[in-house]
Amino acid sequence: MDDAELVVPWEKQQQRLLNPNDSRGTSPVRKSFSYAGVTSTDGARSVAAGLAVVSADASLLINEAMPPNELTSVSRHPSASHKTCSRKSPSVSDPTAAIFQAGAKMKFMPFFVKQLGPQVLASGSAGGSDSSLEVTCSYISQEEAKQIDEELFTEYAFSVDQLMELAGYSCAVAIQSAYPRAAMKSSDGGVLICCGPGNNGGDGLVCARHLKLFGYKPTIYYPRSPTKQLYKNLVTQCEKMGIAFLSYIPSDVKILESSYDLIVDALFGFGFRPPLKPDFAEVVQCIADLQVPLACIDVPSGWEVGEKTETKDILQPDCLISLTAPKLCARRFNGRFHFLGGRFVPPILADKYNLCLPQYPDASPVVLLSGPPPPTPSK
Amino acid sequence: MDDAELVVPWEKQQQRLLNPNDSRGTSPVRKSFSYAGVTSTDGARSVAAGLAVVSADASLLINEAMPPNELTSVSRHPSASHKTCSRKSPSVSDPTAAIFQAGAKMKFMPFFVKQLGPQVLASGSAGGSDSSLEVTCSYISQEEAKQIDEELFTEYAFSVDQLMELAGYSCAVAIQSAYPRAAMKSSDGGVLICCGPGNNGGDGLVCARHLKLFGYKPTIYYPRSPTKQLYKNLVTQCEKMGIAFLSYIPSDVKILESSYDLIVDALFGFGFRPPLKPDFAEVVQCIADLQVPLACIDVPSGWEVGEKTETKDILQPDCLISLTAPKLCARRFNGRFHFLGGRFVPPILADKYNLCLPQYPDASPVVLLSGPPPPTPSK
Repeated sequence: MDDAELVVPWEKQQQRLLNPNDSRGTSPVRKSFSYAGVTSTDGARSVAAGLAVVSADASLLINEAMPPNELTSVSRHPSASHKTCSRKSPSVSDPTAAIFQAGAKMKFMPFFVKQLGPQVLASGSAGGSDSSLEVTCSYISQEEAKQIDEELFTEYAFSVDQLMELAGYSCAVAIQSAYPRAAMKSSDGGVLICCGPGNNGGDGLVCARHLKLFGYKPTIYYPRSPTKQLYKNLVTQCEKMGIAFLSYIPSDVKILESSYDLIVDALFGFGFRPPLKPDFAEVVQCIADLQVPLACIDVPSGWEVGEKTETKDILQPDCLISLTAPKLCARRFNGRFHFLGGRFVPPILADKYNLCLPQYPDASPVVLLSGPPPPTPSK
Repeated sequence: MDDAELVVPWEKQQQRLLNPNDSRGTSPVRKSFSYAGVTSTDGARSVAAGLAVVSADASLLINEAMPPNELTSVSRHPSASHKTCSRKSPSVSDPTAAIFQAGAKMKFMPFFVKQLGPQVLASGSAGGSDSSLEVTCSYISQEEAKQIDEELFTEYAFSVDQLMELAGYSCAVAIQSAYPRAAMKSSDGGVLICCGPGNNGGDGLVCARHLKLFGYKPTIYYPRSPTKQLYKNLVTQCEKMGIAFLSYIPSDVKILESSYDLIVDALFGFGFRPPLKPDFAEVVQCIADLQVPLACIDVPSGWEVGEKTETKDILQPDCLISLTAPKLCARRFNGRFHFLGGRFVPPILADKYNLCLPQYPDASPVVLLSGPPPPTPSK
């Protein structure tokens, strides 16, 4: 019932933005406001790095109300109850070259063509000198993420099993797309998945199971023994799928780096509040020390979920897989791949929370929000 | 525990096959034997139509033990505990022409490239004059399907919610691939999904929800009010997704044909035993009368699940989406698209039941077992 108060129509939100004295501007509701990254040739890299660019027309209206780095541009029609999220095709002359220009940490060649189809390709350009990008997507606060999650289970009658299955599957699909199995030669497909005690850990367990079916060799580090039947079942499913569980993380970084081509962080999600407890802080530090790409599920562990942070972000993921909608902290992400997964939000719920979500390609459970362009097809 | 007796190692199965006097040859276990369709240019159409072709070398060994139309060829290595299911690329000179040669009922142009990627494309050739096809896949009996299902829930600790979500999602993906939304112009994406009272109906409800997210306009006909919480929840999810429920099927065929571009049959699955009760027989007859493509989930409703049938198969689907593994009755299918979905079978379970399942492409939840080749890219 309190939700009604929290949901502010577009027109009112806009009025608040236009009034720099409105103190409610700092409420979580206003942070659900849709950010649109409309960039020119020069701006493409900035958006891909999680920074915001204010386009000329929008900034004229709003730059007094919000700091320029909090909003990109406002392109949504004020009176539209059904939002359309626009997405333009990039013009890339030599995308392969652009990939290699972009990343010193580049280890894998992404094959989006196989997995995600042309619609994702169209947005998958970053760092190219002649690429353009337009993606519209809402970012949500910790409070909103909790409310949306709660509503999915109560009002919309989803079971945790269902949504966790879809979320974990979408993570595995994103990983398959960004780090194709065929490119994981050094470890023969080895992926270490670190799972925490809550739902984020559950997503990780589901992700591991699907990765196994996709031909990877996942290993799970799950330090806390679960007491809930849900997690016990997920563990059984993984064990019976032939997935190994580590009882501890080897302190020798070299062992980890030679065994795994990818680390997946599923320790903590949008419910996290700092500080990390000492035992998990150790795990996070260990992951941070590894010279292996890191993919984080929903929220990099240890990160404050809000946009601003008082603490240091220890993890710097190469890939972030946001679920339902990116959290505000995702704007601090400056790795290569930012996916959105968890394609299960009913349109009415998206409307209620003023969520403007990008169009998923065809039947794909993930959409690429930012990332390198695909390689040029061989001639 | 009784399952152990039912699982017969490959070597013993082969011995039985080589001994025509072994009466156990008619047990459900023997029917789980792997069928391999190795076809030449001429045979491609036969396999696509669900018929079997005995290759020369295999028939020398086994044609006395099994009738030629029950087995295609035996190419599996006898001592291999981990089976490899082979799949060769077809050589198609003009696949678009082949599609139009193949089907008078052709209504949609399939765009496999977008959805399923090249690996599925490789097997998606049927009816072409110069195409070749090699697909290896087990077909299972009703009894085995029940046992595998039971084991997934008990031994492997899956919840019904989980597997139903994956199964229903894979059906929606298959439908998106075979009947792209963009091609559904006459009804603006209208799909009528007929759901029965059991798990097959549940798969249909999940499928409808995902189709809605993919941009279709699904309508559900669900004649029995559910009493189980699982189904009540699935109905709530659909209702809250804005999906309409029909209280009856209009008797005027014209109304249905103008409103829907596709009918999905999710009335009865692998648990069905004839005869259909009168009210469902009416629904099935109504569906059969429609001049709109029909996609059936797992088993066309009213069909006996075994290979042979005493009764007439009223439904003749254009598309069959087998789940877990095709049932023996799928060999009677002679429509255009045969997909396999439900990518959740643990390798140990597949081994136990001697299931040889085809390789799924990348992270796709479905694999095309037979169907038209993709259209030629425009030059």
